[in-house]
Amino acid sequence: MKAEILAVGTELLMGQIANTNAQYISSRLPDVGVSVYYHDVVGDNPERLRECLELAMSRSDVIIMTGGLGPTQDDLTKETVAAVVNRKLVLHQESLDKIETFFCNINRQMTQNNIKQAYLPEGSIIIKNNNGTAPGCIIEEKGKVIIMLPGPPSEMKPMFEETVIPYFASKAEYRLESRYLRIFGVGESAVEDILMDLIDKQTNPTIAPYAKDGEVTLRITAKYPKDRQTEDLITPVEDEIRRRLGDAVYSNDNSSLDLVAARLLLESKKTISVAESCTGGLLSSRLTEIPGISEVFDRAIVTYSNTAKMEELGVRKETLEAYGAVSEQTASEMAAGIRKVSGTDLGVAITGIAGPGGGSDEKPVGLVYVALAHKDGIVVRKLNLWGSRNRIRNVTCLNAFDMIRRHLEGLGEAR
Amino acid sequence: MKAEILAVGTELLMGQIANTNAQYISSRLPDVGVSVYYHDVVGDNPERLRECLELAMSRSDVIIMTGGLGPTQDDLTKETVAAVVNRKLVLHQESLDKIETFFCNINRQMTQNNIKQAYLPEGSIIIKNNNGTAPGCIIEEKGKVIIMLPGPPSEMKPMFEETVIPYFASKAEYRLESRYLRIFGVGESAVEDILMDLIDKQTNPTIAPYAKDGEVTLRITAKYPKDRQTEDLITPVEDEIRRRLGDAVYSNDNSSLDLVAARLLLESKKTISVAESCTGGLLSSRLTEIPGISEVFDRAIVTYSNTAKMEELGVRKETLEAYGAVSEQTASEMAAGIRKVSGTDLGVAITGIAGPGGGSDEKPVGLVYVALAHKDGIVVRKLNLWGSRNRIRNVTCLNAFDMIRRHLEGLGEAR
Repeated sequence: MKAEILAVGTELLMGQIANTNAQYISSRLPDVGVSVYYHDVVGDNPERLRECLELAMSRSDVIIMTGGLGPTQDDLTKETVAAVVNRKLVLHQESLDKIETFFCNINRQMTQNNIKQAYLPEGSIIIKNNNGTAPGCIIEEKGKVIIMLPGPPSEMKPMFEETVIPYFASKAEYRLESRYLRIFGVGESAVEDILMDLIDKQTNPTIAPYAKDGEVTLRITAKYPKDRQTEDLITPVEDEIRRRLGDAVYSNDNSSLDLVAARLLLESKKTISVAESCTGGLLSSRLTEIPGISEVFDRAIVTYSNTAKMEELGVRKETLEAYGAVSEQTASEMAAGIRKVSGTDLGVAITGIAGPGGGSDEKPVGLVYVALAHKDGIVVRKLNLWGSRNRIRNVTCLNAFDMIRRHLEGLGEAR
Repeated sequence: MKAEILAVGTELLMGQIANTNAQYISSRLPDVGVSVYYHDVVGDNPERLRECLELAMSRSDVIIMTGGLGPTQDDLTKETVAAVVNRKLVLHQESLDKIETFFCNINRQMTQNNIKQAYLPEGSIIIKNNNGTAPGCIIEEKGKVIIMLPGPPSEMKPMFEETVIPYFASKAEYRLESRYLRIFGVGESAVEDILMDLIDKQTNPTIAPYAKDGEVTLRITAKYPKDRQTEDLITPVEDEIRRRLGDAVYSNDNSSLDLVAARLLLESKKTISVAESCTGGLLSSRLTEIPGISEVFDRAIVTYSNTAKMEELGVRKETLEAYGAVSEQTASEMAAGIRKVSGTDLGVAITGIAGPGGGSDEKPVGLVYVALAHKDGIVVRKLNLWGSRNRIRNVTCLNAFDMIRRHLEGLGEAR
């Protein structure tokens, strides 16, 4: 079934919020055999909404609408849909009772305009809202399905999961399954080059690459008849991709590199400490985003000044004078230093030039060294990165996580 | 002018990412006299893209397209647009040179498919991409304007600001001017209560509040005939708002609290060091996002373990035993300790419970202490925050920046 997600709300067109509802719904529908072909956003305007709805009904089988079900005059999704499908809005007593109870529970007087929310198109399947006042509904009309859900994600998501997903699951003739392979250390165009023939020849499963800040994600999507629950078309493709890309593939469950590295630390119970210069605490901050990391993370020291590098990490003055703060040698001494100071199994250090200032011909913006000290030695990775200060700092952290991963998985250093 | 934002990319329809580009562009266009009427998303499919584009051209004056400009076979935005407006794709040598230089700078071989990015519709205005390989372009065709920008926000945003905004600003008949007042320390509903009469009665300028993670931004937007360059309808409104909200208003140029605090540090040449526990390096990371901060930022120490707090910051064992790691006393000693260790003018320390685990009845998740040590003493702010680990860490950092700001501006502590 071809679906279209039509969001209604001027706040989306003003850029006050992003259309995260469309993202959420899109990520869930393929699992119940529904493919999303279009997203649309239109403001709280009845003529334009009507036009968009009529277009959607002409090209899609399923139209999922979000927003415009509330009590105010702006909210006119139901009224517009009812007019298009030529149905009356009728009072749904159970919904009205629920709205009254809701106001009673929060100790507020229900204003008159709230009653409007209990009027729903005749003959529709009602979707209960347990987290707000506006119910949703499903209308089946001439082979098309129109679904209306409220805009607030905290109301929309549970209604979608409790009613919409089961509705489609019971109808689906086939199911789609996706697996996400995440890749680090090979650029997007190189990935495509290496996999060109696979991408071209595959129809089931399909392979789609997506690149972001130094990483590539491959989505492998297979379509199965609904009765074949045990078939696996994805694994052979994953195996072939892994054969070609090797250990650049770091996860197959859409886990981030941060999370993969953190999990390896927690599983192996290896303690870690961090010394950062140009990333200024970003690596430490990302590592500590992961709940429970305190079991293995001891401390991080951000040494911006040379004095701090010497005082806190024991980097030698001679090293700084001979090679500079941004050098393989300084990175190594920082990593060894933080490991020694904190008594951890691993010590990771970063020094580099994140820009926009501070670069030179010899040491341009984007030159970064990442070092990992462990009980048997020190590995250093030299990076030549491009882009904004933020991008350079981000990609540097990814490289640090990749070095941690490779070390803990017993892989050799990349490149 | 009526605008429509057409995003191209199957990753959006699969729900891998949200269409934040549409949000960003929508939030900026009204400032240059362009109103957004529709958002659309379509996959990497030439027929459907063509249909969407033709529809957009029939109902909108301006079509801003994002995505599909990259090197891969999926990327077919330019090809489709060129076919619709009946123009050839021609090699733009300057763009090709830029792509080659780009690969050279990052020490990678340019694969053949990258050349495709330098082919642009004949007669279009080229939009340079300084943060990636795919240039964008502007096509003027029969009174319509079609703009193509790459999908990655880190590339799209600067191109939009540097080229698209000036392009429309030069064409607009009237101009809208917005000023953003940013507010910290007063909640959204309190701000609305205090300003209710102003918000209700204003038509030019309009006042729109927007709340996010402990902060409120007020957008004041005035509309001027284009020839009236000196009129100022905004300042009197700003003055009235400031009279009511006082020093909770921390910027009027949309500068973040991070940036305001960093600027005050740089202007006053006060050096700073940071000790963090539950924020795990986030404060340091955010401070060091600001280019040039190395002039005043010396070091940060993330002390997750009690041992690290004692070793690195000189927190006394007795303090930790008597009051615990999350206490006013520990925060004070951490702040005094980092200030002493690093010899800076200011020392900021954070200790708290970011969750989801680690809370108790006495010390629940969200309890955080932020301390600021300076030459005349130590200020401590106690926070009771709610929400996710990320939200708690974020709002904690905002409070630290607010304390730095208030100290350097000679204001008393808030609350």
